[in-house]
Amino acid sequence: MSESLVPETRVLAVASHVVYGHVGNTMATFVMQSMGCEVAALNTVHFSNHTGYRQFKGTRATAPEITDLYQGLCQSNLTDFDVMLSGYAPSAAAVEAVGNIAIDLRRKAEQKPGSFFWVLDPVMGDQGRLYVNDDVVPAYKKIIHHADLILPNQFEAEVLSGIKITSLATLAEAITAIHRIYSVPHVIITSVQLFKLSQSGKTPSPPENFLTVIGSTTQSDGSPRLFRIDVPALDCFFSGTGDMFAALMVARLREAVVAAGDDLRTTQSWVSPDSVPATNLPLAQATVKVLSSMHSILERTMEARNAELALALPEQNGDLSPEEQQKRDHLRRTKAAEVRLVRNTRFLRDPLVQFKVQQWRKEDLPAQLQ
Amino acid sequence: MSESLVPETRVLAVASHVVYGHVGNTMATFVMQSMGCEVAALNTVHFSNHTGYRQFKGTRATAPEITDLYQGLCQSNLTDFDVMLSGYAPSAAAVEAVGNIAIDLRRKAEQKPGSFFWVLDPVMGDQGRLYVNDDVVPAYKKIIHHADLILPNQFEAEVLSGIKITSLATLAEAITAIHRIYSVPHVIITSVQLFKLSQSGKTPSPPENFLTVIGSTTQSDGSPRLFRIDVPALDCFFSGTGDMFAALMVARLREAVVAAGDDLRTTQSWVSPDSVPATNLPLAQATVKVLSSMHSILERTMEARNAELALALPEQNGDLSPEEQQKRDHLRRTKAAEVRLVRNTRFLRDPLVQFKVQQWRKEDLPAQLQ
Repeated sequence: MSESLVPETRVLAVASHVVYGHVGNTMATFVMQSMGCEVAALNTVHFSNHTGYRQFKGTRATAPEITDLYQGLCQSNLTDFDVMLSGYAPSAAAVEAVGNIAIDLRRKAEQKPGSFFWVLDPVMGDQGRLYVNDDVVPAYKKIIHHADLILPNQFEAEVLSGIKITSLATLAEAITAIHRIYSVPHVIITSVQLFKLSQSGKTPSPPENFLTVIGSTTQSDGSPRLFRIDVPALDCFFSGTGDMFAALMVARLREAVVAAGDDLRTTQSWVSPDSVPATNLPLAQATVKVLSSMHSILERTMEARNAELALALPEQNGDLSPEEQQKRDHLRRTKAAEVRLVRNTRFLRDPLVQFKVQQWRKEDLPAQLQ
Repeated sequence: MSESLVPETRVLAVASHVVYGHVGNTMATFVMQSMGCEVAALNTVHFSNHTGYRQFKGTRATAPEITDLYQGLCQSNLTDFDVMLSGYAPSAAAVEAVGNIAIDLRRKAEQKPGSFFWVLDPVMGDQGRLYVNDDVVPAYKKIIHHADLILPNQFEAEVLSGIKITSLATLAEAITAIHRIYSVPHVIITSVQLFKLSQSGKTPSPPENFLTVIGSTTQSDGSPRLFRIDVPALDCFFSGTGDMFAALMVARLREAVVAAGDDLRTTQSWVSPDSVPATNLPLAQATVKVLSSMHSILERTMEARNAELALALPEQNGDLSPEEQQKRDHLRRTKAAEVRLVRNTRFLRDPLVQFKVQQWRKEDLPAQLQ
């Protein structure tokens, strides 16, 4: 085998499908398949394109339709999944239906601890704004305690923890609260803009053009085991990066857990013994590789976007109003920023750069948290 | 670039989606993506699994839903496709809707000959039996003359040509008729069991355990330019092989046409000059590579299937009736025969074996066709 594939992993991926471009399952499925995972994609919406275009057509799956597809798998004994990855669900009832699938898969696996793992991306909003119905929030709050790893962004972590993240102290508080409230053993908060938080602790702040990813696996007393990775931010907005992160994480976390040996692989929720420091956690090791792959692919995406936008526009028949011109420009820029995936899969399989993972120890935290 | 990717190609793939396993778009999308094509998958059904399991759940897209998704692409200028590949559509109205998409894409490309190419797999039935509604047949007959390449199996070629294929002579007649009736420049009939046909010509018959693929690109007078490739058949039924063939063909045909130079690439329907012999046609060269990739992957699938079926069955609670036992065995065998794609993509990109393509000249044909 000349290719660098992760250990064989069967994944049920429950998220949105778009015809054009790469977000949701249309991102996650190919990413995981490229790394050697067998992926069953259960699509929660069927849209022409992602919502960043500000217009789209298509249909949403209802909760009964989602349940029915899963029942179809059950009746033919097609539920031998090692991991479930769930993302966007289009309603509170759909979130509940997805939760019930995970609960059923966990029940089927209960005789074999560690043989089923649920990665949940609680897609609710971003940048201080919900983009789902209000009733989706309590629906997530009801199911999260069944998840093994959740991947909220900063805003979603605030919603779930009830803690406004304004400083390093409140960030640590939010993670501690998520572990405690939902008994969820692994948490990663993607894309924290640390430089924007007030610097009340001793942890050095990264420069302004960096994003920080913070993760934690609980210790046996329920306290967090925090690590942090700073990565250079690219000056462009890309859709689907959360889905790329989640998909890479499924493959890399399973790889790290298998490499750690049978003891961890057969431990419920793959929680490492307390003796393992934060930076050596499979979650931390996986995150390093995930961010490396993402950085290379997004760098190439930005180059390709810039080249595409530098091309002359095709001629337009007739004059456009300022509004029409603006809309056309927005569509063109959005299309140009679609992640360049299919011709860059080598960066998924063989990450090049090596970001540094740092332990975030108690003594680094603000005094009130120590 | 260390990988062997085909030239950049944007494909609109219109076919079925299954959650588990690989058929329809769930086969074709990943195959084309693995070879470097950017694929937009417009799914015509959303099923839990393929129908070979004899039970499934899910929904079919209606014709208006298919049209609506395409309109979504149009309104955001997301229709820059080089190739459209269409497969299963769940009703006559859906076939018509798919045809209208192809007609619209061709209209958009009419100023640039060769910049759009439609590969149509007229999925209607197999082994002498229709598995679509009767009204799907005339729906296909109405749209096929817009296609550049069609990929019927032996039964579908009979339905389209009106000629029962019982001999080499009638096989050649059927292809000639398809070229003539539908003005379709490229035809490949997949999986002809030549050894079952009466041997009335001088063409040597392959041994019993071989399948023959017959293809043709028209000459300027409308007559066929026939080639044939014999490949060893594997003793197992696999679902999705037609979709794998079609997807590989899209990638390899475009590669061969780009390699042939700008003259061919900018010729309507990529029809080679009459001076190009059948065995040198891009269609023939592409078919050689397609069949090689398929053979390697299906060989590995059969090995994996046999290993899986050799494993002891998990214990069953309680006694099963003979019917239940038979159903369970069927489900297990069907699952074990799912094509092993994700860990064998190197055979897609770098075909190993080299099958021989033979010209099927007039003088090889039965006397009445010369």
